[in-house]
Amino acid sequence: MAEMDWKHTIRDLKGVVLDMCGVLYDSGEGDGVAIDGSIEAVKRLKASDLQLRFCTNETQATREKFVAKLGRLGFDICVDEVFSPAPAAVTILKERGLRPHLLVHDDVVPEFDAVEKTDPNCVIIGDAADNFSYQNLNKAFQVLIGLEKPILFSLGRGRYYKEMDGLKLDVGVYMKALEYACDVEAEVVGKPSPVFFQSVLADMGIQPSQALMIGDDLVNDVGGAQSCGMRGLLVKTGKYRPSDESHPTVKADGCVDNLAEAVDILLKHRGQ
Amino acid sequence: MAEMDWKHTIRDLKGVVLDMCGVLYDSGEGDGVAIDGSIEAVKRLKASDLQLRFCTNETQATREKFVAKLGRLGFDICVDEVFSPAPAAVTILKERGLRPHLLVHDDVVPEFDAVEKTDPNCVIIGDAADNFSYQNLNKAFQVLIGLEKPILFSLGRGRYYKEMDGLKLDVGVYMKALEYACDVEAEVVGKPSPVFFQSVLADMGIQPSQALMIGDDLVNDVGGAQSCGMRGLLVKTGKYRPSDESHPTVKADGCVDNLAEAVDILLKHRGQ
Repeated sequence: MAEMDWKHTIRDLKGVVLDMCGVLYDSGEGDGVAIDGSIEAVKRLKASDLQLRFCTNETQATREKFVAKLGRLGFDICVDEVFSPAPAAVTILKERGLRPHLLVHDDVVPEFDAVEKTDPNCVIIGDAADNFSYQNLNKAFQVLIGLEKPILFSLGRGRYYKEMDGLKLDVGVYMKALEYACDVEAEVVGKPSPVFFQSVLADMGIQPSQALMIGDDLVNDVGGAQSCGMRGLLVKTGKYRPSDESHPTVKADGCVDNLAEAVDILLKHRGQ
Repeated sequence: MAEMDWKHTIRDLKGVVLDMCGVLYDSGEGDGVAIDGSIEAVKRLKASDLQLRFCTNETQATREKFVAKLGRLGFDICVDEVFSPAPAAVTILKERGLRPHLLVHDDVVPEFDAVEKTDPNCVIIGDAADNFSYQNLNKAFQVLIGLEKPILFSLGRGRYYKEMDGLKLDVGVYMKALEYACDVEAEVVGKPSPVFFQSVLADMGIQPSQALMIGDDLVNDVGGAQSCGMRGLLVKTGKYRPSDESHPTVKADGCVDNLAEAVDILLKHRGQ
């Protein structure tokens, strides 16, 4: 039934948004490895009449470094096509005249180079990994609790992710910690925030109903996209688990083995 | 009105429970300093016909070290009179046959010496301070997420506390972090858990209505004691703030300047 839903809307599509980790490649030692058929699938989408953007919650590297890594894996992607939380946060900071205290990964700090950071009046946390020391979390807390109205931005709300040596705590866990400490609610920048998806749609100049999100994360990719009116397609690669197909609140518009199969179906239904 | 409430019940009391930090002493450099009149007040209570116990959420030292510190400040207190979360947790572990992975302060580890810790089937977090590194929190998370039914104990649920060099994050913040990461609810051992107050009452062999809690923390001391049927008296020392007297949900049965005044009133109403 769900399969039907997304297939009969394919002809109306004007753009496709791809999650990256778990859809294009699997992370691992070094740069990780491309998922079978995904390099060719991206090429075919780029050659089609569909617009294409990439959307990631990666906050352990600048987009430049991230795109360079994907280039080494064989993907032809430009920085301008990639939407990640850090540049989205920079836009918000500028709009609202905010100066952040940063608790992020060292490698993403350059994204904030052009932002005024003295006398901070908000806190931004990203997936800081080893930078999440007691001392650093305390420092972020002290900045927040010292503000008349604490403002906390979180670059994502993930619980954990998988690395070669096991599961690792993600930024959402520290977001919850600071929310409790200061009795505030964080503003989430990145998936699954509707604002984040809307910025991608605005860049393509299309309506939500004209866009399809393809991701391996049921809640953040599929659910996030659906919450702003897009269709959401789940791939059975990356962090996909069979239980995703019976999730209590989020139901994908369709489910395919991998990106290659998704692109096959998309282009076949469009006669390309 | 509230003042009347607690005064007319004084004659029925059989026991008093005192919070320690902020009631007996203020922490600070070295051992901290005794609060004016509190050493004499403890002496007078001990000489009265009321039973006396002490109740602390201190989890940065064993009770032995903690009592020794109070001795140096001039207080005559025995280890057996002091109730703290770590020994309460040890009792629970033994009752339920649980083997903990510990994420606690180095100085409280000896409280768990007699507990089997290999092949852990639960996690205990205390106020671990600098031990709350990303690596250590990940390790605790990995133990929890690897259990069929994750069991998390938290030695308190405080948000933060004050030290000489500023506010510091307390154990409750990391409890919330692990709760979110593993989608579990922690079992809180220590104030304000009713089970914790009940263990103190059981030790005195008296009913809740026969006991008065005196503390400086409206929610954890006063509210916690009230939630298990005790009276709760607030002192205006330690972390007391004037806004405590208009708290939306917790209302103290009475409010006095300090422990010395509380003991004056108690003993006067009992004709001692």
